[in-house]
Amino acid sequence: MTEQTGTQTINGVDVSKLKETIQAVKETPSLADFRFRIVNKWQGGGLNQTTVKASYGAGQEFPERDGKFTMQADEPPILLSGDKAANPVEHLLHALAACVTTTMVYHAAARGIPLEAVESSLEGGLDLRGFLNLDPNVRKGFKNITVNVRVTGNLSEEQKQEVVKLGSQFSPVYDMVTNSVPVTVKLSSS
Amino acid sequence: MTEQTGTQTINGVDVSKLKETIQAVKETPSLADFRFRIVNKWQGGGLNQTTVKASYGAGQEFPERDGKFTMQADEPPILLSGDKAANPVEHLLHALAACVTTTMVYHAAARGIPLEAVESSLEGGLDLRGFLNLDPNVRKGFKNITVNVRVTGNLSEEQKQEVVKLGSQFSPVYDMVTNSVPVTVKLSSS
Repeated sequence: MTEQTGTQTINGVDVSKLKETIQAVKETPSLADFRFRIVNKWQGGGLNQTTVKASYGAGQEFPERDGKFTMQADEPPILLSGDKAANPVEHLLHALAACVTTTMVYHAAARGIPLEAVESSLEGGLDLRGFLNLDPNVRKGFKNITVNVRVTGNLSEEQKQEVVKLGSQFSPVYDMVTNSVPVTVKLSSS
Repeated sequence: MTEQTGTQTINGVDVSKLKETIQAVKETPSLADFRFRIVNKWQGGGLNQTTVKASYGAGQEFPERDGKFTMQADEPPILLSGDKAANPVEHLLHALAACVTTTMVYHAAARGIPLEAVESSLEGGLDLRGFLNLDPNVRKGFKNITVNVRVTGNLSEEQKQEVVKLGSQFSPVYDMVTNSVPVTVKLSSS
């Protein structure tokens, strides 16, 4: 038995730290409790802006992230706004693509599989009659989402398929979009 | 019966155009078919970038949106990356907040309800043991999401409650997150 020393980085992920994290969470499951927070402000018409707030995880608050990132959303003219940013459903596709990619990259790293490039194309189709309340049988959101992933690296077709499978198997956003999440909406007293 | 002329804007939304849109979709339901598209490229470690592609709707392609917006995602150091952007689950919260807000604003406008301000605070909690594959009974995504909405305007408490309800009733992203969407993930042959 040899003991590994130093750090090992695969796919830009420090695998030694990743394994330490897994070990720490195994020993102290409460470290796995993470909370992510944002605030969003309406800016008129279809435009609004999100600010990322402090997050919590591994038993600590991260106040240095409070206000660090802002993201806008808007709607194109065909949906009656000024097209100053991607719209909310495009942001959902971004969240999904980003999460599936990061999940493939991290889980491949943990298995010692180096990747050269990952690129994905997503499309979601929706019937606006849902949002417009013209037909109660038409859903408001996407009817379906297709994700085409291209993985580049010194890998067999089978290994590429395995990497893609890791994405849908362990991605938090993929889990939420395909399995649903309970959402509680409340009016704050001002 | 009087005929309304000119435009009427409420909450920054051209309500005359909104009513024309509703009428047009009623007459020609195929106009309600919308498709939104993105591509995402991995940039190393937990960092990746999405580019919005041309969208389709109301019987037309919108090639002028191709490449107009880019959004990055990353992970904070505690999740082993450089924290150059909000992470994928924060982007999901952004998509949800943006969509619920826009839905409240548009549906309030259609009902002639003027709003002064809308602000929402969201939190999602997750147990990292899901992503880390330490317990198959722990889900990967958020266990729950809370949304606290503050609505400002010359409205009764009851009207504010009604506006908040419009958000969850008609928002496409709220529908997707709470009711799930079928997602097909495929490996592209390169």
